[in-house]
Amino acid sequence: MKPINVGLLGIGTVGGGTFNVLARNEAEITRRAGRPIRITKVADKNLELARQVTAGRAEVTDDAFSVVSDPEIDIVIELIGGYGIARELVLKAIANGKHVVTANKALLAVHGNEIFAAAHEKGVMVGFEAAVAGGIPIIKALREGLSANRIQWIAGIINGTTNFILSEMRDKGLSFDTVLKEAQRLGYAEADPTFDIEGIDAAHKITILSALAFGIRMQFDKAHVEGISKLDADDIKYAEQLGYRIKLLGITRRRPEGVELRVHPTLIPAKRLIANVEGAMNAVLVQGDAVGATLYYGKGAGAEPTASAVIADLVDVTRMHTADPEHRVPHLAFQPGAVEDTPILPLSEVETSYYLRLRVEDKPGVLADITRILADQQISIDAMIQREPAEGESQTDIIMLTHITREKNVDAAIARIEALPVVKKQVIRLRMEELG
Amino acid sequence: MKPINVGLLGIGTVGGGTFNVLARNEAEITRRAGRPIRITKVADKNLELARQVTAGRAEVTDDAFSVVSDPEIDIVIELIGGYGIARELVLKAIANGKHVVTANKALLAVHGNEIFAAAHEKGVMVGFEAAVAGGIPIIKALREGLSANRIQWIAGIINGTTNFILSEMRDKGLSFDTVLKEAQRLGYAEADPTFDIEGIDAAHKITILSALAFGIRMQFDKAHVEGISKLDADDIKYAEQLGYRIKLLGITRRRPEGVELRVHPTLIPAKRLIANVEGAMNAVLVQGDAVGATLYYGKGAGAEPTASAVIADLVDVTRMHTADPEHRVPHLAFQPGAVEDTPILPLSEVETSYYLRLRVEDKPGVLADITRILADQQISIDAMIQREPAEGESQTDIIMLTHITREKNVDAAIARIEALPVVKKQVIRLRMEELG
Repeated sequence: MKPINVGLLGIGTVGGGTFNVLARNEAEITRRAGRPIRITKVADKNLELARQVTAGRAEVTDDAFSVVSDPEIDIVIELIGGYGIARELVLKAIANGKHVVTANKALLAVHGNEIFAAAHEKGVMVGFEAAVAGGIPIIKALREGLSANRIQWIAGIINGTTNFILSEMRDKGLSFDTVLKEAQRLGYAEADPTFDIEGIDAAHKITILSALAFGIRMQFDKAHVEGISKLDADDIKYAEQLGYRIKLLGITRRRPEGVELRVHPTLIPAKRLIANVEGAMNAVLVQGDAVGATLYYGKGAGAEPTASAVIADLVDVTRMHTADPEHRVPHLAFQPGAVEDTPILPLSEVETSYYLRLRVEDKPGVLADITRILADQQISIDAMIQREPAEGESQTDIIMLTHITREKNVDAAIARIEALPVVKKQVIRLRMEELG
Repeated sequence: MKPINVGLLGIGTVGGGTFNVLARNEAEITRRAGRPIRITKVADKNLELARQVTAGRAEVTDDAFSVVSDPEIDIVIELIGGYGIARELVLKAIANGKHVVTANKALLAVHGNEIFAAAHEKGVMVGFEAAVAGGIPIIKALREGLSANRIQWIAGIINGTTNFILSEMRDKGLSFDTVLKEAQRLGYAEADPTFDIEGIDAAHKITILSALAFGIRMQFDKAHVEGISKLDADDIKYAEQLGYRIKLLGITRRRPEGVELRVHPTLIPAKRLIANVEGAMNAVLVQGDAVGATLYYGKGAGAEPTASAVIADLVDVTRMHTADPEHRVPHLAFQPGAVEDTPILPLSEVETSYYLRLRVEDKPGVLADITRILADQQISIDAMIQREPAEGESQTDIIMLTHITREKNVDAAIARIEALPVVKKQVIRLRMEELG
């Protein structure tokens, strides 16, 4: 059968991986797809690199717009990243009737509604398996594999950089700053690590998963985003003593009043499988009403793992290329007309349990004052440890785990606790999830 | 849009779950599928039960053949089980041009080639997500999500009963027989547990995964099948001391000479995520050349988890119902013409590492004799423990872990070792997998 012609925009790490895997496994992929899939044109600003990787097996250009306008191209792979030129190219490719495959979570989380509307209008497909959790087929699992379920919540370790840093902090008892430098040296963190360490990348991804799970529009601007750069090694240690690990989780949960959408460091029970996902690995836990909990684990980044997801999309698109659009899986899992306008709840309305660390003077009555304030705010305590003060030390740490309560109650309690003269520092507040 | 009409054969545990989930989540499922999916006709020998579950919402009959011949029915769900009447009904439904969804791993592992050939001939789909690992969408992951990869191997905990028994044996230090009775009391094991405990159920499932992974025909009759009924609690304890857990794994691996296909108790490093899958849960680890290792975890059985998979297939079939067959995902992941005749290797050609336990007289020279025999067979030792004999005891246990070697070399070594007068019992041999 006639090969499918693919144009590749951006031949960096993932682009190079995609080109190589597609070439290496061409026979096996053709046995699956029923026809050859070939990257025939590559656009990159770095022509030298593009020539080197393609080695004469594809046409090379530095003009990405010439690829999205090429009548010979059936599918465009966008691996440029960012919201700027990538958005223009994707919309142009769609306008030209081309199917698109992209790994660009930032673009989809921020401009996904526009892009999917354009694709629907034009009758083309936009594949984005590579946008969340690299090679793990989580988009497919959520959109197709779990289609019987009313999804209740998702919790994911969906940023490898931060999971690597947290794993190292715990294993070696080191500070965030020290481990970040090590991660940068090893290539696990970028020179400017902001997107990763401040939780923005994870928030892009959980925004996409949230839309797929609940049949709602992408609402990245409503997500609560909190990274790990302020996380203290002491809290990792205390959490450990209480039987918990701290992971940066993307969490989205359906509640009667709306949807929770948040990224923050989270205490989870050490015995959960997902608590034992170490290093740069990713894992996504999905709770459905029929299936219960299912977990998906694998490499969340890297040339070939991400290429694996890009190519899976190419195979899907190839298969459905000439089929009526009505037979396709809807982009956002639900039929375009059935996407609902459910609000994202503000952080103050989030319901979860909390880890609180207080620095207090070691004298009588302190605990009574604090527990009174918590009781006033309807917050009940599940566990507590008080560190024994060192010889001659007049202050100590109290660590409390609460039962499930509302964020605004905790805000109010913390404000009152911090106003007590015996409380010597800002209260450390971390959220907890049982994931049971 | 016009609803899709489904006929259900068998309204036991999974059938009832399917009926209930489909009714409960009808709105959500319709938002995904684009049209309602309704079970309009149910066949079961137990008419009373069928009437009770359906409560007037579907026609009830005790004649399954009337369902597969009903011109109003678009899709038939087969949940009868076994190879007999189920095979007849599935083939009849296909002959009548109906799509089929089944959870029947035994039927597919043994008669799959015939059934898929008939379905291909007739241009209908046969969905079987529910046949392996219950609600975990592993068939979809393997067939579509990982389509870029040359799959290298799969190792799965794909039988909940045996994983429950092994978890209990380890946790509580109990014998197989004691735990089996407990499992039967709790409903985790059937009155006749043979299919589960002897590994047959797991072998059916790994046969299906093997075909999907490597593009080969189903070859259940070539699988090596070994259960856990002879497993000694002592070996679980020794494995633990060496940093391993024992799990009943279904394993299939591609080698240049052919494919390994085997089910047996297996030592795996305790630090692996899959080693920490406890109780009746299932997990499948897949190694692809591009993506590396990915793991899929969830409930492998039960009414609603299995229903989740059955209904996911219904949604897929509904979507592709009127599309040309060429657009569909091939039943066995590879295009029918591209399925290869790769042989399954005999057990003697399997390559892995081994755990050996020897009961020996505690006297000089014993270890020298044994290690000489192993060296003669090109088997090298990775780790060893020798239990200190109790006061007055004249015999002791030697436990050895070997590096990777071939099964036939181990067979030969064991025969020679057992012939030594100082060796007092049959040598215990278990296989090990690093899964790294």
